[in-house]
Amino acid sequence: MGADDKVYRLLNYKNLLNRLKSIGFVKVFSDNLADTLDISPSLVRKDFREFGIRGAQKGGYTIETVLIKINEVLGIDKKHKIIIVGAGRIGQALMHFPGFKKEGIIVSAGFDTDPEKIEEQADIPIYHIKEMTEFLNKNSIKLAILAVPENAAMGCLDMLEAGGIKGILNFTSMNLKSLKVAINNVNIGNEIENLIFTISKK
Amino acid sequence: MGADDKVYRLLNYKNLLNRLKSIGFVKVFSDNLADTLDISPSLVRKDFREFGIRGAQKGGYTIETVLIKINEVLGIDKKHKIIIVGAGRIGQALMHFPGFKKEGIIVSAGFDTDPEKIEEQADIPIYHIKEMTEFLNKNSIKLAILAVPENAAMGCLDMLEAGGIKGILNFTSMNLKSLKVAINNVNIGNEIENLIFTISKK
Repeated sequence: MGADDKVYRLLNYKNLLNRLKSIGFVKVFSDNLADTLDISPSLVRKDFREFGIRGAQKGGYTIETVLIKINEVLGIDKKHKIIIVGAGRIGQALMHFPGFKKEGIIVSAGFDTDPEKIEEQADIPIYHIKEMTEFLNKNSIKLAILAVPENAAMGCLDMLEAGGIKGILNFTSMNLKSLKVAINNVNIGNEIENLIFTISKK
Repeated sequence: MGADDKVYRLLNYKNLLNRLKSIGFVKVFSDNLADTLDISPSLVRKDFREFGIRGAQKGGYTIETVLIKINEVLGIDKKHKIIIVGAGRIGQALMHFPGFKKEGIIVSAGFDTDPEKIEEQADIPIYHIKEMTEFLNKNSIKLAILAVPENAAMGCLDMLEAGGIKGILNFTSMNLKSLKVAINNVNIGNEIENLIFTISKK
């Protein structure tokens, strides 16, 4: 959890810095970041130091420099190809998710078992899932989004592991674990229930 | 974070117990839950005690009893109406998200500014966003999902606060905070970037 928390903070810095940049800011102080993100200024400085980002003593941090360093640290100065397994409503929505492009994330293909969803000629082609292993081997893809029905999740995980996938963003309601692959579970139902619990206490 | 972690654990128990129930289990031990969820058995027992759930000394916990208690604690023994703001791809996918029904979550309506997306006669009607405040007042709805473009997020938050919404699940890439409303931010771009960082370290 510790390392993950730090990465999420870094991503929060990045989002915030991009927003400040877009409104014309050139420099920013650790206090500015800390106030907005509800953390201490010393934690901001510690994070930046650990990731090799240094600010001038009194002048704060140059936003552009920090953004470049954060992207280096996160490995998102490069392009990353992903596939999406499951071309239902959620899968299709993620295929065209506007946030991916600006992060250098390219959706290479989608996969489904339903013949009606196969669209091999589309901008982002959707192939039958039986072609997935060959596609992964040919294109050396490391990342996958899983958006299949719950009862198909385990079988897909096996296929993705065998195909050399190293990271999975799992949108199924099945909490997945793997020794071979890093998995981030995004359980939409759990998020809503958590919210219901929070507001019921108020 | 502490309270939230506990709720997520409870939701994990619930998912797991439902799965065990569906394959015919009637009873379960804290060790079974702990092993599967990578936590200690004593933490499972502590959680259950705190939420008023007790097991027989040697017989373990009766799954059905635990499920009923967990749903009571989470406030999901009742039906909950939600609205979805933004009827783009993500919003539309969430309108028909299969996981909601079984949790007693009813999507009452969607809202958008695009006249082409308005569908007042649909099963889940989509209204123009200017009708949202009146709709919220009439239907006393407490929960909303936000799936609008980033630049519309703040304006929608204001409207939702004014309309009496108490909890928001935020799918925009804008990290939102509010003193009036509980907000769970689900940043899909951040989840992917976190995964890229994780696999780049291996």
